[in-house]
Amino acid sequence: MKLIIGNKNYSSWSLRGWLACKQSGLHFDEITVPLYGDEWDSQRASNDLAPSHGKVPILWDGDAVVWDSMAIVEYLADKVGRDRFWPKADDARAMARSMVAEMHSSFFALRRACPMNVRMRVEGVTLGDDVRADIVRVLTLWAEARARFGGGGPFLFGTFSAADVFYAPIVSRFLTYGIGVPGFAQAYMQAVWEHEWMQQWIHAAQTEEWVIEQFEAPVK
Amino acid sequence: MKLIIGNKNYSSWSLRGWLACKQSGLHFDEITVPLYGDEWDSQRASNDLAPSHGKVPILWDGDAVVWDSMAIVEYLADKVGRDRFWPKADDARAMARSMVAEMHSSFFALRRACPMNVRMRVEGVTLGDDVRADIVRVLTLWAEARARFGGGGPFLFGTFSAADVFYAPIVSRFLTYGIGVPGFAQAYMQAVWEHEWMQQWIHAAQTEEWVIEQFEAPVK
Repeated sequence: MKLIIGNKNYSSWSLRGWLACKQSGLHFDEITVPLYGDEWDSQRASNDLAPSHGKVPILWDGDAVVWDSMAIVEYLADKVGRDRFWPKADDARAMARSMVAEMHSSFFALRRACPMNVRMRVEGVTLGDDVRADIVRVLTLWAEARARFGGGGPFLFGTFSAADVFYAPIVSRFLTYGIGVPGFAQAYMQAVWEHEWMQQWIHAAQTEEWVIEQFEAPVK
Repeated sequence: MKLIIGNKNYSSWSLRGWLACKQSGLHFDEITVPLYGDEWDSQRASNDLAPSHGKVPILWDGDAVVWDSMAIVEYLADKVGRDRFWPKADDARAMARSMVAEMHSSFFALRRACPMNVRMRVEGVTLGDDVRADIVRVLTLWAEARARFGGGGPFLFGTFSAADVFYAPIVSRFLTYGIGVPGFAQAYMQAVWEHEWMQQWIHAAQTEEWVIEQFEAPVK
């Protein structure tokens, strides 16, 4: 398998696809195509990126191509077994699947105002009401998952699952923009941040040389 | 199981959740909460809608609550078997999963400019470049799915699958707004429109009494 991703510092969807591949336990090669770099347009026309709509991540597995991070999770779950990605109990899995789907389709205010930038830390950020509503919604979901299903470990549904894969970039954003969160959420964020795979990703992001100015600007 | 949906004439995500329930072969009760009606705000605070972010569809299955149409597909696939929703072959399933995920997260220009309105037909619509780009993308995906994997029947991957569940509201939009499409797409749209479950949904939409003015206005 090969996984095509963007810059590790900036590409939140790439982080999700990459964590999903790690979670599968399968070997995969990484190919990084720097976002908006000189190579981006030419790579978008290449065979590797052509079947998609020009976005990353993309997973190639022989003839099979999967061009969306949520589809990557499900494709890999088909391959290695659902229990590696999703809680076993119906009610927990119903919630995990709904949370992941909501992350996939929503939270636009937060995503727009607070782009992922793994190595950046800013203080005194002013956030609009729509962004704060998104943050409250995330914290509500985290609180309910942890309270109802988090007994078996420090992650949303106990052990590391697809839900953590999908909310990991939110953890990064909350740290970057100094979002104040209650204690239970601090503990969860620390568990995600200290996870071995996250540490690998963070280290790689910190040593990347590419800088995209539009994601370095102060928040409006 | 019970499925909470919005108006059948307007609620495209409800149509997806409802078709997914039909596809499962399981019995389910429908509860309609008219969008933006007097009941909407009070229902949003009720027990049935409370776990979600106030959107439909929502599937209740005992204690399990699933509040997103894509999560509903996967939850039901867990319950009745993946093959009822997704192609068996890896490469076909990779594409079907990617197409469904792309529909779930994208096509905002098309969704905004051409809201679903099952019973309406308009002519001479002027569409922006972003909407036309979305239409081209949809047709590209349909063409590739039909050409590579559609041999076993008239639907995107031959027999009716989750991909058709997700693109059925697009078929309705293309008919409503008189979008010109090539012959292969006309044939596909006809197969979707004539499907027994679609005919049931269309009939129910046509006999609904609610009218939402903002979705009846001419396209800008």
